[in-house]
Amino acid sequence: MHPASHDLEALLSGVAAGIAPSELGELFTAAEDPFVVSLAGGMPALGGLPWERLADLARDLLLRSGPSVLQYGGARGRGDLRAGVADVVAEQGLAVDPDDVLVTAGSQQALDLVARALLDPGDTVLVEAPTYVGALGVLAAQRARIEHVALDDDGLRPDALEEALRRAARAGRIPKLLYTVPHHQNPAGVTLALERRHAVLDLAGRYGVLVLEDDPYALLGFSGPPLPSLRSLAPDLVVHTGSLSKTLAPGFRLGWVLAPEWLRSRLELLAEATVLCPSGLTQAVAAEYLATTDWRNQVERYRDQYRERRDSVLGTLDVELPEATWTRPGGGFYVWLTLPDGLDATTLAPAALAAGVAYVPGSAFFADGGGRDQLRLAYCFPPPDRLVEGIRRLGTAVRAARR
Amino acid sequence: MHPASHDLEALLSGVAAGIAPSELGELFTAAEDPFVVSLAGGMPALGGLPWERLADLARDLLLRSGPSVLQYGGARGRGDLRAGVADVVAEQGLAVDPDDVLVTAGSQQALDLVARALLDPGDTVLVEAPTYVGALGVLAAQRARIEHVALDDDGLRPDALEEALRRAARAGRIPKLLYTVPHHQNPAGVTLALERRHAVLDLAGRYGVLVLEDDPYALLGFSGPPLPSLRSLAPDLVVHTGSLSKTLAPGFRLGWVLAPEWLRSRLELLAEATVLCPSGLTQAVAAEYLATTDWRNQVERYRDQYRERRDSVLGTLDVELPEATWTRPGGGFYVWLTLPDGLDATTLAPAALAAGVAYVPGSAFFADGGGRDQLRLAYCFPPPDRLVEGIRRLGTAVRAARR
Repeated sequence: MHPASHDLEALLSGVAAGIAPSELGELFTAAEDPFVVSLAGGMPALGGLPWERLADLARDLLLRSGPSVLQYGGARGRGDLRAGVADVVAEQGLAVDPDDVLVTAGSQQALDLVARALLDPGDTVLVEAPTYVGALGVLAAQRARIEHVALDDDGLRPDALEEALRRAARAGRIPKLLYTVPHHQNPAGVTLALERRHAVLDLAGRYGVLVLEDDPYALLGFSGPPLPSLRSLAPDLVVHTGSLSKTLAPGFRLGWVLAPEWLRSRLELLAEATVLCPSGLTQAVAAEYLATTDWRNQVERYRDQYRERRDSVLGTLDVELPEATWTRPGGGFYVWLTLPDGLDATTLAPAALAAGVAYVPGSAFFADGGGRDQLRLAYCFPPPDRLVEGIRRLGTAVRAARR
Repeated sequence: MHPASHDLEALLSGVAAGIAPSELGELFTAAEDPFVVSLAGGMPALGGLPWERLADLARDLLLRSGPSVLQYGGARGRGDLRAGVADVVAEQGLAVDPDDVLVTAGSQQALDLVARALLDPGDTVLVEAPTYVGALGVLAAQRARIEHVALDDDGLRPDALEEALRRAARAGRIPKLLYTVPHHQNPAGVTLALERRHAVLDLAGRYGVLVLEDDPYALLGFSGPPLPSLRSLAPDLVVHTGSLSKTLAPGFRLGWVLAPEWLRSRLELLAEATVLCPSGLTQAVAAEYLATTDWRNQVERYRDQYRERRDSVLGTLDVELPEATWTRPGGGFYVWLTLPDGLDATTLAPAALAAGVAYVPGSAFFADGGGRDQLRLAYCFPPPDRLVEGIRRLGTAVRAARR
């Protein structure tokens, strides 16, 4: 009586029918081999967190206020955590009322909520070339039309942005959204220069495009404070997302979104429909940590750790891959490398893995097949000696492929 | 140069432009007054949880395996928690391989993922009359066409379901999904009888409709074990969602979905695009709790607690509101009450609140304006003496309105 499952499969929505597993899954599984140096995943190195302190905080919170910490809460998030988030974003010069913070299940959920609140199928979104793979997933789930805009060592290029906006206007489709990672971009490792920030906002304002500023790496600069956030320069025009995943730890699954009020209220309703509320337990632990621990000092230690790792990678690249080119990140987790002789990074990946190093091929960061001769090196997780070994193995694999 | 925000508001998606804050928010705020007995929110009463044990678990996990617990994880969820979920659903006779469990941020996210994976705008979904308000929110966010199917004391009525399916078929629109809460339904407090389970599945199979079985109250029956889950009776035809919110606590934000493989793989990809992964911290604590604590005994104590509260409400209703009618739940959190003389529950709510009692008006549980003379009484959170006082106040408010 029951139909075969292939009949029911026809019930899939257009979105679900169109999504496919990325090749990254296989890559990450292979990279779990302890012999392999994985430069693939953007996992923060958490060893240096104050574990005793976090453990005591969690214990005390459950003993002192368990029934409220483990209860349902408001969709907007706990007041103490929203105050903590306001402190964190103040470090990058962003003054915000805790009441205007919407706490999310990581900044990934923030991106998803913004996409759902703004995009109908076929709407155009501008993204950097390359861009964050997780943003591409969110935009694909909304069936958006994705257009890439070139970047260089100073971030998104305003001339390329203006050209993209003009071209879209001529075609009768004004983009709704410009998605950018302005500090230590994932995957390119570049930062949007100050004068370009003004130029980008000016263009967005002229064309009536909202800017989605995804800024998880703002506090991870290796030489001095972050640049002014786009949202601080044009709050009416910019939606800002952030995360505790890189400055504290991903396992809390806590991020946030700051948005103009007309949008924030909608995001909150969508968040409620999606997950009811963020976890009270992780919110309470994170809030207490931010309120009672010298978290700025912990972030400073993260910066020192990642600076040392970047230096290991850049120094070894100079020796091992002189024929390639790469970005020189001023913070964050990533180096973006262009292979010599138009070598294909996807084709090279199995040989690199066999040599004992994993990376993410550049095409993962494009919706249009770009980036074939490029790749991302994430230096955040392995210790420096392993990074050196990984880059050496990459050099070996590249030299073998060029023969 | 920047446009006014009312220009940018035109960028909202069709979904976001159409959602509006529910009136429930105001109600829940008013119900926070300590004088008011709130029968509005379905919050579990958590006082009896083993707090020392949970606190020690959390502390030990952070000390012993902090760097893995607070790291990113797989979208499917941790293996230890998937094994724990398999144990929990086994209590309701559902045999499942842990590999087939998809962990979600509460069952609310599970509902949202299923809706996104199946529904295009305008697709028809059948729901009970009344139905869970959070499901209505999820379906509205997919712009589904919602049709209600009558229920009675034995749950969803197969005759009404067949009539709805026939009517839809005549109109050329086969529903994609039937959403049901088969045990101790929210808000009606009724359970789908065993013979009706077979009848419902038979109809779903004949018409090629997938059944979404939302079953968070299955283990909270007051007299004996749960009935066979729909999924155990027809695994190819049924998507099953569950939650730790009612058997452990909501603040973990952990639920799950069990689905046919063609759907599960899509749900996992959508989950990854939405939140990357569930919280490693709450997953690890919950998994350790399920593996090392006598959680079945804790659920038994929850059952005793809620049975006593239900008895307080039913006994007091007999005395205070003899002119009304109501369901007599065999488990779960809710009594569904029909007011006498066609009194309007929404109109009555402010007077009831002034008398010191809050409830959710019945129309919240309908997408079509139904339920105006009905209301939901949640007896889960207040202690018995407060429940008695709340029902007395409700009686006073109803008598005053009938004069």
